[in-house]
Amino acid sequence: MRKLKITEMGRMNVEEFRASEKMPLIVVLDDVRSMYNVGSVFRTADAFRVEAIYLCGITAQPPHPEIHKTALGAEDTVAWQHFPTSLDAVNTLKQQGYTIFSIEQCEGSTQLNELDSQLAALNSKLSTLNSKFALILGNEVKGVHQEVVDASDGCIEIPQFGTKHSLNVSTTAGIVIWEFAKHLLI
Amino acid sequence: MRKLKITEMGRMNVEEFRASEKMPLIVVLDDVRSMYNVGSVFRTADAFRVEAIYLCGITAQPPHPEIHKTALGAEDTVAWQHFPTSLDAVNTLKQQGYTIFSIEQCEGSTQLNELDSQLAALNSKLSTLNSKFALILGNEVKGVHQEVVDASDGCIEIPQFGTKHSLNVSTTAGIVIWEFAKHLLI
Repeated sequence: MRKLKITEMGRMNVEEFRASEKMPLIVVLDDVRSMYNVGSVFRTADAFRVEAIYLCGITAQPPHPEIHKTALGAEDTVAWQHFPTSLDAVNTLKQQGYTIFSIEQCEGSTQLNELDSQLAALNSKLSTLNSKFALILGNEVKGVHQEVVDASDGCIEIPQFGTKHSLNVSTTAGIVIWEFAKHLLI
Repeated sequence: MRKLKITEMGRMNVEEFRASEKMPLIVVLDDVRSMYNVGSVFRTADAFRVEAIYLCGITAQPPHPEIHKTALGAEDTVAWQHFPTSLDAVNTLKQQGYTIFSIEQCEGSTQLNELDSQLAALNSKLSTLNSKFALILGNEVKGVHQEVVDASDGCIEIPQFGTKHSLNVSTTAGIVIWEFAKHLLI
């Protein structure tokens, strides 16, 4: 099978991206320490036309060379804003009608492979047109703050079967955004 | 919802991991340049009990401090071996009966969201017990070598809708391994 050339991939330019319809999903980074992770989340958010990234607390903001290393320009396409704390971001999102999920391993969290039935249950309550979501990803060591988890509508957990207690933040973001993209974008 | 403590997550120790049944999936890294990516793939492979990682060509091998930064010890749990070229790895895997997919954007590649029907079609040909898979992830700039693509049984592509022509290698690995884990592990 012949590999496609970059010119054959039919990608948008920056102006087309800004004007395009976005996936109704906002990604909230709660005190994410690594700028590699921040940049990588921007790149994933570009690929799946995420509505915006909310950078909270100590999470670094573009422009920054370390963010650029993994974002590779996606920091110029994806909308973003900074909030002093992720609780501020969550309160704003709630007022705007977003359904908010913390990505955390909690008592009773929804396993990501059961997201379909979780969203189907939500859809019976929400109008599809009004279904918009926010996903909160936490600090590399401490995860999402407990008070932010408490303010969320639910927790989603990626089931894991090895020795480490978590996946990298950028990998987690990729997997969860992909699952939502299958529902909201593709 | 209360966040789980690490001690409540029921993770395996290294010995239990080594003795555990693995997902019948081998990840082949074809000239991956970044040790952050290599380490991150190890961490993801630990979480989903991937059978082994084949590090090919210039792909760095553990132990290395830069790999450890993102693997965080998973380089000591997941089996790996080095091959001079990924074509050597692919030829070995073929002899062992693995079905081999390059993760690439090719003419006629399978979209990842259509993997279910692709695997269902394969399952009608393969015995479930003999279904074992290898995924090839390529260099950050050049992707999978064309001759390795040609030697594969098929190409899988993550559909993308933004401005950038690809996702990060570690993000790509996370998304594709997750999709296979839903079929082979969970």
